Amino acid sequence: MKLIRFGEPGQEKPGLQLPDNRRIDVSAFGEDYTEQFFATDGLTRLQAWADANGATAPEIGNRVRLGPPIARPSKIICIGLNYSDHAKETGAATPAEPIVFFKATSSLVGSHDDLIIPKNSEKTDWEVELAVIIGKKASYVDEADALDYVAGYALHNDYSERAFQLERGGQWVKGKSCDTFAPLGPFLATKDEIADVHNLRLWLTLNGEKKQDGNTSNLIFNVPFVVSYLSQFMSLLPGDIISTGTPAGVGLGFKPPQYLKPGDVVELGIDGLGSSKQVAKAYS
Amino acid sequence: MKLIRFGEPGQEKPGLQLPDNRRIDVSAFGEDYTEQFFATDGLTRLQAWADANGATAPEIGNRVRLGPPIARPSKIICIGLNYSDHAKETGAATPAEPIVFFKATSSLVGSHDDLIIPKNSEKTDWEVELAVIIGKKASYVDEADALDYVAGYALHNDYSERAFQLERGGQWVKGKSCDTFAPLGPFLATKDEIADVHNLRLWLTLNGEKKQDGNTSNLIFNVPFVVSYLSQFMSLLPGDIISTGTPAGVGLGFKPPQYLKPGDVVELGIDGLGSSKQVAKAYS
Repeated sequence: MKLIRFGEPGQEKPGLQLPDNRRIDVSAFGEDYTEQFFATDGLTRLQAWADANGATAPEIGNRVRLGPPIARPSKIICIGLNYSDHAKETGAATPAEPIVFFKATSSLVGSHDDLIIPKNSEKTDWEVELAVIIGKKASYVDEADALDYVAGYALHNDYSERAFQLERGGQWVKGKSCDTFAPLGPFLATKDEIADVHNLRLWLTLNGEKKQDGNTSNLIFNVPFVVSYLSQFMSLLPGDIISTGTPAGVGLGFKPPQYLKPGDVVELGIDGLGSSKQVAKAYS
Repeated sequence: MKLIRFGEPGQEKPGLQLPDNRRIDVSAFGEDYTEQFFATDGLTRLQAWADANGATAPEIGNRVRLGPPIARPSKIICIGLNYSDHAKETGAATPAEPIVFFKATSSLVGSHDDLIIPKNSEKTDWEVELAVIIGKKASYVDEADALDYVAGYALHNDYSERAFQLERGGQWVKGKSCDTFAPLGPFLATKDEIADVHNLRLWLTLNGEKKQDGNTSNLIFNVPFVVSYLSQFMSLLPGDIISTGTPAGVGLGFKPPQYLKPGDVVELGIDGLGSSKQVAKAYS
């Protein structure tokens, strides 16, 4: 299944994108895609509901805003420098074990919402990433079992303000958590939709020009390893997002660096996970 | 008012601790202390309800477990090295601007819950801290107005696994987010209860021996500055927790360092915010 949420910010309703790309309203199913939904095997209930009611559910059309495909989770966990070409372009060493940081969940927005460049920002940058959505509580999970704890995958743009992240003292979180810095979607694809999560092309363009073009086959730490690893340090809760890192081609990596300005158009995509588009706006 | 939540983990009910220290059940008020509660001026409604019903509300007694005094917030933001004596004991320079990191909200527990020492931990440490609870959404707030966005204060122990934090690559979050690493409370004191938030003694003992003894007068970056500062990088949401840093006396600072082992008893307190106690247990 491809789960979507649609409607005005904060008032999104659950929906599905069908194999023929029609989008349907599944409000009648009666549940939003929350921690509770995933924790109580909601995907199985949703599939049963869709089998019985999908054909007659109201269509949404393509003009309605998409929100993030899941309700606000307990956390967004990101892996830093998880593609060796990206580590190299930033001047960093290839990490010996995963670098972990959080984004504020208040940065989460829909896949086609505007990117708001923060006040006093001069170095707002892009990062196309494969996001993993946790399906059930994971604590001290073995790598061999880790995929059992995954609900599905989504496209994520891990927007980053490089001056806030790297030049303001100590930790990265200041440059990762601004409002609108985590467009997720257009949809969450359940695990069964993706034949091989470690062979997906991911790409990003700026104003139509290709900037990033990588493949998840080049992840330094793959999905089961990352899920297992993180679960040694904290409980992963249903609905939690793990963003697995970005390949080469971010603005910071160019000589000279290239950063976003109002009016810029960022488009990105991952095989099987659709594409998204954000227009950069100044804060006002 | 002093807000408490009581009952089994995940099923806490709202309560109040009255000026005579009696604890009452305010379930009949009909709202938990959530983001929505704070966002809709719930403190005013709660005060009105308590004025009318407090005298006749059921008492809880002192044997019931206390949970965290607020429902799980969108984020726990921490300020690092915000007392110069603590910066010095860790060997770090006094920061030029606040060092910011997150704890996973899944680490939040009640004030007297056990501390679970994580698997493979050899360096679990303590940090008594003043926590600020946000009362309304704050984005780009001036320092002069910052306290208008504060609902109140609570006692927090920012447990930290120093090897996970400092020896496992890059960012601090791995050592800050383990389950049970954020005991909060016993209560949230509304802002009016604390005459001067910048003159509160805070202390911590290990097995009865004094380890930390500081005063919030020595904060490098004070509460209004921190609230304003953070709001330049992200929206602070109602119920969000800001933990303002710890004074000298953490285990890492001793020569040789001292870390927690099963059976250790940690007690801590802040003037006007009560005291808490955690017994360390091995993960099992």
